[in-house]
This record gives sequence, C-alpha cells and structure tokens, in this order.
Amino acid sequence: MISGGAGKRSGGGPAKCKRCREPAKVEVARANAAFCADCFLHYVRNQVTKAIDEHSMFDKTDRLLVCVSGGKDSLALWDILMDMGYDTTGFYIALWTGEDYCSESRDKCEAFAEKRGGKLIVHDLKEDEGFTIEQIAREGRRTPCSVCGLTKRYLTNLAASQGGYDVLVTGHNLDDEAATLMGNTLHWQTEYIARQMPALPSTHAKLVKKVKPLYRVSERETAAYSIIRGIDYIVEECPLVAGNTQIRYKDALNSLERLSPGTKQQFFFGYLDKAAPLFAASDPVVLRECNECGQPTPGEVCAYCRAKKQLRAKTRPAVEIEEVAP
Amino acid sequence: MISGGAGKRSGGGPAKCKRCREPAKVEVARANAAFCADCFLHYVRNQVTKAIDEHSMFDKTDRLLVCVSGGKDSLALWDILMDMGYDTTGFYIALWTGEDYCSESRDKCEAFAEKRGGKLIVHDLKEDEGFTIEQIAREGRRTPCSVCGLTKRYLTNLAASQGGYDVLVTGHNLDDEAATLMGNTLHWQTEYIARQMPALPSTHAKLVKKVKPLYRVSERETAAYSIIRGIDYIVEECPLVAGNTQIRYKDALNSLERLSPGTKQQFFFGYLDKAAPLFAASDPVVLRECNECGQPTPGEVCAYCRAKKQLRAKTRPAVEIEEVAP
Repeated sequence: MISGGAGKRSGGGPAKCKRCREPAKVEVARANAAFCADCFLHYVRNQVTKAIDEHSMFDKTDRLLVCVSGGKDSLALWDILMDMGYDTTGFYIALWTGEDYCSESRDKCEAFAEKRGGKLIVHDLKEDEGFTIEQIAREGRRTPCSVCGLTKRYLTNLAASQGGYDVLVTGHNLDDEAATLMGNTLHWQTEYIARQMPALPSTHAKLVKKVKPLYRVSERETAAYSIIRGIDYIVEECPLVAGNTQIRYKDALNSLERLSPGTKQQFFFGYLDKAAPLFAASDPVVLRECNECGQPTPGEVCAYCRAKKQLRAKTRPAVEIEEVAP
Repeated sequence: MISGGAGKRSGGGPAKCKRCREPAKVEVARANAAFCADCFLHYVRNQVTKAIDEHSMFDKTDRLLVCVSGGKDSLALWDILMDMGYDTTGFYIALWTGEDYCSESRDKCEAFAEKRGGKLIVHDLKEDEGFTIEQIAREGRRTPCSVCGLTKRYLTNLAASQGGYDVLVTGHNLDDEAATLMGNTLHWQTEYIARQMPALPSTHAKLVKKVKPLYRVSERETAAYSIIRGIDYIVEECPLVAGNTQIRYKDALNSLERLSPGTKQQFFFGYLDKAAPLFAASDPVVLRECNECGQPTPGEVCAYCRAKKQLRAKTRPAVEIEEVAP
C-alpha cells in the first residue's frame, strides 16, 4: 500500500477503500482513510475541485498558465486540470540550478506535454536572461533559493501578463504551504502571512491573479497520484536545495505529522479559517511600475531588477554599471 | 563550558567572557555570546529585570506568590527574586504524579526554602483535594497533563487570592513559552495565543495578576544558572509527561534551534512585538463566579469543578453524584 500520509491504519486486516470497499491501495492517514487506486484519484480531484470552488480560483472561460517544473506536484496538477477540461498552457523555466537536473526536468515537462497534447512554453534563463541560478550560488553573494524564488515569481507573472493569461497556476501542495506558513510564523512576518492565501487577486494591471489548487493535497498524495497516473516526473530534489530553511520546516512538520496525523492540514486550514482574517487587516501593499522594467513593484525599482544589477556589478567591470534613477 | 544554547562559537581558541574578557564558562549561542560564571549570573538577572520592567510585572511593595515545583526553573526564579529583594513566598503543590517524584520534588523545595530562609506553603492534592494526578492518569479518562495544568492554575490562583498576594509568579521559561506558542499556533487557538503575554492583569476580583519573569531565559540557561548557584533541583521530568504534545513542540523547536540559534527567541519575542496586538483585538473573556466554588470562570461551573465532578462520578456510586445547576 502506498502511504499517502503518516500513521498506521487502526485495527487489523487489510484496509478497505473508504469509498468502494474494495482493497485499499493508498492510505491517507490525516483523513483516517484508505482508497483503491481509482477512488484515490477521485479523492485528489475532489480536493482540487474543492480548492478551486472555495477560493473562486477560475472557471472554464479562463486561460490558465500552469507553472511546471518537471516534478510530481506541477505535472499532477496540469494533468488534473487538463482532465477537468480547463484551458491550460504549461510554462517551464530552465533555471539552470545544475546541468543534469535542468535538462532532465525540462525533458520530463516536454515528454509530458507531448504525451498529453498540452501546449508548453519554455523560458531559458541562460539564453533569455543571461544568467543562471547555479552562477548565483557559485558567487555566493545571495542565497540561490531566494534568487530562484524571486526569478520564478517575476518571470511567471511576466509571461502570464504578456501572454494575456487570466490566471497563473502553481503546484504548491499542502506540505509547501504548511512549511512556508511555519517559516513565516516563526519569524512573525505578518505581511507574508497575510499573503499566504490560496488565491491572490490581481491588484495591478500587470499583476496576474495567482492560485494554488493543490493546497489541500499533501506531497505524498501528489506522488501517489503521479505514480498511479503513470506520470514520469523528476524524483530528485534541486541540487542547490541542501540547507534550505524550507526543508527544515518540512522536517519539523513531518516529525509532528508522524506523531499526530493531520498536523499540517490543521495548521494550514486553521490559518485560513481562523487567523487569515486577523492578518489580512494589515495595510495592503500599493503597487506601481518599476522604473527599470515597468513590472509591478511596491518600490522604485523591482527586486528582480535590483538582483540583476547586483549580478552585473559582479560580472562586469565596475565602470560599466548603469546608474538607476533613485 | 556549559552550553547555554545550541551552536558553536565561531573562530578558534578558548572563548572569552563577553562582559569581562575572562575565560568563558557558559555559552549563549542565541546571543552569540559566552560568559564567565559571574557574568552569566549577571546576564540571567538582567534578562529577568528586563522582563519585570518591560511588562510592569511587580515592584518591591507587592507580595509575590512564587509557584515552585522543585525543578530548575522555579527554584532559580525564586532565588533571583529573593536576591533582588522582592517580598516572596514559595507555593508548592504536591500533585502526586508519582510517589518518588512527588516526595523528591517536595524535598527539593523544602530544602531550598530552609537554606535560603524563604517561606514555603505546601498544598497537598491527596490530603487537601482528595485526588491525585496519578489516579487521573490511571483511570485514563482525561489526559493527566491537561488536568494537572488545570489543577495548578486553579489552586495557585486560589492560594494567591485567599492569601492576599498581589501577584502570582510562575517559572515558565523561553522554551516553555515558545513550545506553547507553537502548539497554539499549529492549532490557531487565537484566544490562547492572545493570552500568552508574560503578564496577565487581574480581570476579576478573585483573579490574581499572573507573570512569567523567566520568559527571556532559556531552559539551558536556567539549568546553568542553578548549577552555578548550587541550587539542588529535581533533574528528572515528571513521570507522566511521556507523549505530552508540549515535549513534541520542544523537540521540533530544539531541532530548528540547533540549525539556527535564536529561533525560539525570535518566535516568542517576535510574537510579543509583532503579532500579539493582532490577537489581542479579539473579544475579551468576561469572568463571573463559579456556581459551585465561587472562583472566577467564563461559564456557569468552572473547569476545575467539572473535572472534580467527573472524577467523583468514577470513584463513587452514580446515585451519590451531586447535581449541578445547569
């Protein structure tokens, strides 16, 4: 049986599917349930439907740009949304966090898109932006994970905005959201906590609405879904991720989840139900256009342009640095 | 060197006391510091003074009832407050969580009080209340830790209120507060989060002000303080504590603290600075007097009377249960 969560089934004997009473194949300890393969797929799709409905994420008339990395979460999500008949386009960024990792993850996305007849857009950081995440890690002046996150946020929004998409869709799962919330809560970054909603509306003409339809599905569940559906995904973690604080929070939450199944769900769903309104009351961020690139930012120059400028300062002679208006 | 926190001193060679430059004996990784024994005591007392001042906990004219358990935290705190010249009385409850544990912890309190010439009041649960925590654990109808907490909260307030004390002082340290906050946050128990202030004012004539002057001092630091001061405390944990959720949260926070010293402090101090005002905005609890015992409670019958009633229902024939007005 694939373990879709921590813990053990109570009682003896082989577990039966909660929905159809056939022998169970996947356990979902946090829901105190087990499912056969078909009913598990049904369960996962149901969670996605619930997420889409509860947060009015999108409907069949919307053009969705689905961010894919080649991993289980984003490919499973794209698969589900295509099955449900949504108008989707995949968007892959070659981040170059490692030569092999990058080419393998790209291959997985392209193979999946071809197999499913989905449209995939590829943006190559090295070719299109002139830098790689590996280069940033090597130079050691900024954490690669923070620059990678910033780059992805910037380029996915830019692609969605310029391509006329209505909604930007990411494959963040329950584990991702719970770990991020833990990090934000440990530091009481109230403005980040307020922004952890599964659907963030567009608050600027150039900022596309962002949604996370997998927030109700755990990491083990997206893996089980992908295995059952025969989705060929990249299993390895990004080679630059070691020591990432997100991983620490995931470890801490996994330990707590093992002892008390449902911890992550209670933490994140409880946030949405009980705490989000308290944090949302803080002042909203007002966006304007970046002086350099014209993309939405709360400041004068956006974080992406500032990061690129810092990179240029490192790779070119100092005299060649362009000055930016304050 | 006694490690007063996780992590290692950077750089080689023996560490020097941050304050007097003599060889260091105690490391405080979260403050990126190490101290000689004398300066470490100074550092701990400073943290307590800061806590008392920042939260206007009490002054020299107040009569303080200091809850002591025989453990390092409460005895260290009583020691510090006596040294500072506050008007203190120790209050020990024999909870009977285990025969040996109970008699040893009582001995430690009595020996300390005698050595320091402090006044100690002992309240014996078995003699004075007619039940023991061990009995509750044995019967298994309620978690012993929850009944123990409830009993301590009730009896300490009652003793302080009836004894005419101005302030009830407990030895909760930084680790305790961070772990409690983690539990409350994982469940988003917003009303409990709001009440996690180091000083809770009296909101009813029979509810005594409660303060936690050790909230800025970690568990390892109170241990180091007690060792240096030669305080003979009970080292063992309560025998009923195994599986306690608080321990799980402490373990999770200790793992995070090892990787990033200062995590607990950032979490709890950050809560006080940035998040407490958001939670405090919720509706305040209005207290009235319990129909049974007259002690303050938000409901008709207080939780302590309800727990005792449940216990009587178990230990006496059903017909003898007194009925309580709804």
